[in-house]
Amino acid sequence: MSQTTSNEMWGGRFASGPDAIMEEINASIDFDKRLYEEDIAGSKAHAVMLADRGIISAEDCDKIVKGLESIRVEIAEGRFAFSRAREDIHMNIEARLAELIGPAAGRLHTARSRNDQVAVDFRLHVKTALQRFEAGLVEFLRALVDKAEAHADTVMPGFTHLQVAQPVTFGHHCLAYAEMAARDLGRCRDALERMDECPLGAAALAGTGFPIDRHQTAAALGFREPTRNSLDTVSDRDFALEFLSFAAIAGTHLSRLAEEIVIWSTPQFGFVRLSDAFSTGSSIMPQKRNPDAAELVRAKPGRINGALISLLTVMKGLPLTYSKDMQEDKEQVFDAIDSLQLALAAATGMVRDLVVDVEAMRKAAGHGFSTATDLADWLVREAGLPFREAHHVTGRAVSMAEERRIGLADLPLDDLKSLNPAITEDVFSVLTVEASVASRKSFGGTAPDNVRAQIAVWRERLDLEG
Amino acid sequence: MSQTTSNEMWGGRFASGPDAIMEEINASIDFDKRLYEEDIAGSKAHAVMLADRGIISAEDCDKIVKGLESIRVEIAEGRFAFSRAREDIHMNIEARLAELIGPAAGRLHTARSRNDQVAVDFRLHVKTALQRFEAGLVEFLRALVDKAEAHADTVMPGFTHLQVAQPVTFGHHCLAYAEMAARDLGRCRDALERMDECPLGAAALAGTGFPIDRHQTAAALGFREPTRNSLDTVSDRDFALEFLSFAAIAGTHLSRLAEEIVIWSTPQFGFVRLSDAFSTGSSIMPQKRNPDAAELVRAKPGRINGALISLLTVMKGLPLTYSKDMQEDKEQVFDAIDSLQLALAAATGMVRDLVVDVEAMRKAAGHGFSTATDLADWLVREAGLPFREAHHVTGRAVSMAEERRIGLADLPLDDLKSLNPAITEDVFSVLTVEASVASRKSFGGTAPDNVRAQIAVWRERLDLEG
Amino acid sequence: MSQTTSNEMWGGRFASGPDAIMEEINASIDFDKRLYEEDIAGSKAHAVMLADRGIISAEDCDKIVKGLESIRVEIAEGRFAFSRAREDIHMNIEARLAELIGPAAGRLHTARSRNDQVAVDFRLHVKTALQRFEAGLVEFLRALVDKAEAHADTVMPGFTHLQVAQPVTFGHHCLAYAEMAARDLGRCRDALERMDECPLGAAALAGTGFPIDRHQTAAALGFREPTRNSLDTVSDRDFALEFLSFAAIAGTHLSRLAEEIVIWSTPQFGFVRLSDAFSTGSSIMPQKRNPDAAELVRAKPGRINGALISLLTVMKGLPLTYSKDMQEDKEQVFDAIDSLQLALAAATGMVRDLVVDVEAMRKAAGHGFSTATDLADWLVREAGLPFREAHHVTGRAVSMAEERRIGLADLPLDDLKSLNPAITEDVFSVLTVEASVASRKSFGGTAPDNVRAQIAVWRERLDLEG
Amino acid sequence: MSQTTSNEMWGGRFASGPDAIMEEINASIDFDKRLYEEDIAGSKAHAVMLADRGIISAEDCDKIVKGLESIRVEIAEGRFAFSRAREDIHMNIEARLAELIGPAAGRLHTARSRNDQVAVDFRLHVKTALQRFEAGLVEFLRALVDKAEAHADTVMPGFTHLQVAQPVTFGHHCLAYAEMAARDLGRCRDALERMDECPLGAAALAGTGFPIDRHQTAAALGFREPTRNSLDTVSDRDFALEFLSFAAIAGTHLSRLAEEIVIWSTPQFGFVRLSDAFSTGSSIMPQKRNPDAAELVRAKPGRINGALISLLTVMKGLPLTYSKDMQEDKEQVFDAIDSLQLALAAATGMVRDLVVDVEAMRKAAGHGFSTATDLADWLVREAGLPFREAHHVTGRAVSMAEERRIGLADLPLDDLKSLNPAITEDVFSVLTVEASVASRKSFGGTAPDNVRAQIAVWRERLDLEG
Repeated sequence: MSQTTSNEMWGGRFASGPDAIMEEINASIDFDKRLYEEDIAGSKAHAVMLADRGIISAEDCDKIVKGLESIRVEIAEGRFAFSRAREDIHMNIEARLAELIGPAAGRLHTARSRNDQVAVDFRLHVKTALQRFEAGLVEFLRALVDKAEAHADTVMPGFTHLQVAQPVTFGHHCLAYAEMAARDLGRCRDALERMDECPLGAAALAGTGFPIDRHQTAAALGFREPTRNSLDTVSDRDFALEFLSFAAIAGTHLSRLAEEIVIWSTPQFGFVRLSDAFSTGSSIMPQKRNPDAAELVRAKPGRINGALISLLTVMKGLPLTYSKDMQEDKEQVFDAIDSLQLALAAATGMVRDLVVDVEAMRKAAGHGFSTATDLADWLVREAGLPFREAHHVTGRAVSMAEERRIGLADLPLDDLKSLNPAITEDVFSVLTVEASVASRKSFGGTAPDNVRAQIAVWRERLDLEG
Repeated sequence: MSQTTSNEMWGGRFASGPDAIMEEINASIDFDKRLYEEDIAGSKAHAVMLADRGIISAEDCDKIVKGLESIRVEIAEGRFAFSRAREDIHMNIEARLAELIGPAAGRLHTARSRNDQVAVDFRLHVKTALQRFEAGLVEFLRALVDKAEAHADTVMPGFTHLQVAQPVTFGHHCLAYAEMAARDLGRCRDALERMDECPLGAAALAGTGFPIDRHQTAAALGFREPTRNSLDTVSDRDFALEFLSFAAIAGTHLSRLAEEIVIWSTPQFGFVRLSDAFSTGSSIMPQKRNPDAAELVRAKPGRINGALISLLTVMKGLPLTYSKDMQEDKEQVFDAIDSLQLALAAATGMVRDLVVDVEAMRKAAGHGFSTATDLADWLVREAGLPFREAHHVTGRAVSMAEERRIGLADLPLDDLKSLNPAITEDVFSVLTVEASVASRKSFGGTAPDNVRAQIAVWRERLDLEG
Repeated sequence: MSQTTSNEMWGGRFASGPDAIMEEINASIDFDKRLYEEDIAGSKAHAVMLADRGIISAEDCDKIVKGLESIRVEIAEGRFAFSRAREDIHMNIEARLAELIGPAAGRLHTARSRNDQVAVDFRLHVKTALQRFEAGLVEFLRALVDKAEAHADTVMPGFTHLQVAQPVTFGHHCLAYAEMAARDLGRCRDALERMDECPLGAAALAGTGFPIDRHQTAAALGFREPTRNSLDTVSDRDFALEFLSFAAIAGTHLSRLAEEIVIWSTPQFGFVRLSDAFSTGSSIMPQKRNPDAAELVRAKPGRINGALISLLTVMKGLPLTYSKDMQEDKEQVFDAIDSLQLALAAATGMVRDLVVDVEAMRKAAGHGFSTATDLADWLVREAGLPFREAHHVTGRAVSMAEERRIGLADLPLDDLKSLNPAITEDVFSVLTVEASVASRKSFGGTAPDNVRAQIAVWRERLDLEG
Repeated sequence: MSQTTSNEMWGGRFASGPDAIMEEINASIDFDKRLYEEDIAGSKAHAVMLADRGIISAEDCDKIVKGLESIRVEIAEGRFAFSRAREDIHMNIEARLAELIGPAAGRLHTARSRNDQVAVDFRLHVKTALQRFEAGLVEFLRALVDKAEAHADTVMPGFTHLQVAQPVTFGHHCLAYAEMAARDLGRCRDALERMDECPLGAAALAGTGFPIDRHQTAAALGFREPTRNSLDTVSDRDFALEFLSFAAIAGTHLSRLAEEIVIWSTPQFGFVRLSDAFSTGSSIMPQKRNPDAAELVRAKPGRINGALISLLTVMKGLPLTYSKDMQEDKEQVFDAIDSLQLALAAATGMVRDLVVDVEAMRKAAGHGFSTATDLADWLVREAGLPFREAHHVTGRAVSMAEERRIGLADLPLDDLKSLNPAITEDVFSVLTVEASVASRKSFGGTAPDNVRAQIAVWRERLDLEG
């Protein structure tokens, strides 16, 4: 590419040739500066350990630690001049350290390498994010349980295929999402537990001959223990992949809730009203309350799934140990962290603020012969019919009601008797939506008493979370 | 589509119109017949519980259980006539049961629905698969640790960017994969633990009014406990998504090993020789040993990642509870199970059978001034140079050796002294590949003693696995 | 793996060791038998060319062609015994040919290889599928245009954010999908055009020294011309990737229509009624019409996107030329072909059979001050207000109407005048949904006249399709 | 979320509650400011058309156009203060326009909406990017053809399964990538052609009642014509999806080349040497030339595939017309544009600068009995053996040579005769790598003369590109 390109348009950014291209390839500072706190924490821990082990002097250590702290403040206060020529956050900080404290800065890199340095920075960052999600999921659970408590008795249609199937309670519906969130919390904690090993000290790839103490640095940085294999340590991005998997599943759950809110907010459904805080209006159509927050929560899995596929694709078939390909790990993970964080915050806020139109829900629950199953069950229980036969009788009852455009409960007893003589007055007691939900007392069923019992269990769990 | 389509070519399979299309949409029997054992186990447990709770008679229960057992044998022996008209495995079995035992068959479906039935079948299937992977990963670990033990002292080049970086031991390299496999094992077990809840009894979506005992059926089917929310139970496919995430990461690890085997098997590298069992030849080129097994292991993540994305995409934004979309869950998971199973078996076999060319590895390890870091470290340790300065001196030594086309260890002491007067005869002791790997004694480093210590730890862990 | 595995469960399918694994790795016959027609067509064309060029005798050619035809019939009639030991469709057919015609069969493979053979088989298969989709998309377009014509004047709410925005016509809505389908048709044809090159004759990877005529075989198989580079020919799967990209986008379009049908079919919306042919009922709830067909169409992109990602992942970073990884191409593509075919057939059928509740649509269109923009536009046009100011006035009018719970058109003129004195009686002519849609006459706008004009254009295009 | 969150850590960015969340959801200015030139061009075209049609005055139009030009310069020179409160690029510019020219600014938004405005901005941006890729692909083709010409006679091993299969020429290998790039160019141009329709004038979703001239704005912005359906226009992101599909396939091709460069640059292969410009060294190991550029090119498809999946996932099942979900389209596409641009520039540069070790390639080509197929072909051609039998004889010859550790050409004639008496001295003429490649003269084969003929064809094509 020494010759100039014929096409001006193409030339553009890379017209100046290989130098511009390689700067673009090498410079990660634009995104990895996000790791500055972790990088500085790692370097401090490393310096102190080197001094404790007699590898550097206490005096040098002191200079290094103080210099790093100054840099941390410079960056936090926006006074640090990041340089693309210095490629990444590690070199930006190290070069600045040399400016501040002179040759002692050159001793910091003893017994480590950028390979284990970036591994520790990135892992710390993902770990902190997971800890934030742990707290955020607990908040979300709390919002769901609160809402469930307020609506333990609120009857709504239970849907399959988005068609009314059987009446359920809105409280029970909220707790379905609590179950999902609790599994997400479990995956979050498992991921945290598994990644809680410190990469520092793996050096370039083989470990080091310096008498370092990896348990000390691990402890100083809040890790349970150091990693056990240096080659794996600098090659591994499992912690990022497991975070992305967790995020993809958690995001999927939130997107299901979001879709329901979008549908429920239509004038046609009218089950819920999003608060102003989570809607956007239109200057011209003040009646229009666009559920923007719900839509964006619904969309976020696209992005998170994309990030997951990106990193899986990059890591596939990559020989050990470090390859430049792995530089593609960070932006995807950062984006997924931000996406899930926004989605979780918005979902929590929407659940808290959601105003339920109890009457609209109840009314919808009664449509569509939603208690037909209750009739069939009554026939099995009280009249001893095999279930398949009870189904058949119920089908005929529904047809009869449908023809007359009335509800099941409105059918005269004689007509019901004509379908099966064992039917008695008693049957009407099971055909209301309230009776239907109250009867679903099997463990995990939708009966209000069940919902309240589950809420008590949740409260206990959440109290433990503090 | 009452009118016939004008284009014959298009017509094809669906020319006969909506009926053919809907049969295709509804019929899942072609793939869900794979669940027959789980379906029958679930039905047996349900029938026994119904009888124990007095919901059906002991006599009916007995007929049902015996009938189901006959059907199980019919299917296992290939004598069962599956019918697309009966749509799915549940209806195929239930209809056959009616043929075998008459009206009592109609009582089996009391207090359940296809929604919780398919949930329990599919979950049992995934659970069993995960248990198989648990065992398979332990086997794989065993193969890696065995190979590591045989090669704790074998020196090979450690690569970064597929360029020689520093000498490492092949045993250490094997144990890097052991770390990955151990994390996979952890994810496998966490997934098993989390999914160990029985869906049976959630019924269509709301639970049931029959006095069922869900703890009994859960126990009978080997689950820890029943699920806690009926809406979640019939909507949830987390267990499948978590399995696919586990499989995607595990498959990625295997693909990295596979890529290394492909590269190492080239005549240019010549580090390893795959056994005949895992190569294919060519009738015309008997010297040609194509590493087909390794290539297929390398490719499998494509498929598993695709399955993961498929199911994530299907579940995204799906309102509760069951929608037909969810029928798309099984084929993807079945395919991922088969893919990972084949990849893991092939990887285990290849590791066991791999013949290492110890001399070729050692020779390659010595190329490329791979002990330059050792020289730099010596300068820091023995001559007190700051690391960055030591790097600089080493760079000049390497340039000098490169110009003369000799190794670092072949440079005369006087020339080294000209670079830095503090250098002594002692330096040569660190410049061999054996000295280099022996010196990497930091925790997790590549030193043969470290490798042996880690092997001992692994042996203990694996012994516990039995 | 010479030693037996300790764990029975794991052993399973692969307990017998490497042989079972390698059979599984090598055998593609279970899925590539789908290519039998293409394989036989390719072999016939190759044999005839070999004879024409004097490479084999006319007599041998005759035997080969007749033998291949017998085999084609055997397979078509289900009388062919496929063998896993013979690995793939090519070897199954070749071995059978040897049984049928003896040594002459051994001359068929002159100047070709399995690498170009599979390339031609697979490409022919994808080409035929694309031709079917070309026809299918034209059928789909016809259904959309027919439905648009029937509903050129049917007013419905135009949605943004699933909230009512402005009135539109259902005919216009149908034609929106026609635009998408037409772009899909364009992509389909571009893909066909680009892939219309015959791989046969590339041999293993380097071409051949035999004096073959690749233009002859290309023509015989209906290709425009032979490929130009043998290495590329056996390495290339672009035709499959481009098909999958086309399918992913087309499937996405169908999923959007499907989602709308699912939502419109709810009792809450009630805009459309799916025919019995495309719904499933429930034996117990005869009123329940589950939109299964729409749900499955909505789900299919999950599968197609998964297939696309699978093959992209497999091909990424694969060195030239053929690697075993590429064997993973077929199942994904076959599955995507089947998925899109089913989705397209179901979507076409649903559009044809869709019964629209014109009154329900019209009523919904009038809700939510959907003509507020018309008021603002009137203010700009007739009263000369800048648009932003007109918006502001309109917003106040809507607030006024909302407070009184009446429509915009129900506001007394005096009240409107109080907002802006320039408002006259004339304004009411723009506030009905019919006036609103009729006014949208800009090119591409929703006015019934526009819709009819577009239908005429579509009819002309579709007539050309024959 | 009125109550404060208990967990400080979670609170973080969103602690201030719904306001912070909604700002985050609504503000797209951080990324859509990249569209400022397109936004301003669109607004200018719109204003001029409004004036030409008498909808606004010439005077207002003049003010608007001049104001917009000032803003364009402000942004280009970095003097524009972007505001998150003004949400997006459209509102940022419109608000600034009002500051600059007063009330006339309020007339600009007549007969348009943010929905068609963002559609036109984004489409213009993607169109421009595709035009750049068109030029970039031509440059890449030129580099490949130049390299092919320089190495039309350079013999290298042709690989299957990364094992030596048959000798080929490096020129032929380069032209394989030219075929891929030419298909990419075709896809690029097809996408450009298909997207060349102007969305402006679709307004919010229904078109407008103002007498606008959409053909004028289309022409002014360089589009072939306006779009034909307003609902489709504001719902459609096909142009983005088709771009991403193109980019994913093109990126895959580049990744294959990159993988080859990584492997060929190892000391073990030593086929090529990357120029300094495209390698990174190491301060300590000057011999180390890490192929960073190639590794990053190899990794980029991860990112592009992720972007493709993201947008496919977001668009799947989205009801018409605009939903907030669609705001997730831009960042993914921008990232894919940047990724492919960098990868293409780096690949072009690497191909230009690649130094080939001709001798190393030639030597490797002769290994592994790479001319065994030539022997088999000779037996068919000269001795009349059926191919399968010729294969068998060749297999025995190779075994014989392998046992004696000599090449095929080194076997005494008598020994060859013992395998088949028809073998004559003449056979040796086909067993050299030069003879082998020279013989592959079938159309598309690797013979140097073929390669030169293809280069001539390419030159002609590329000359037409100018």
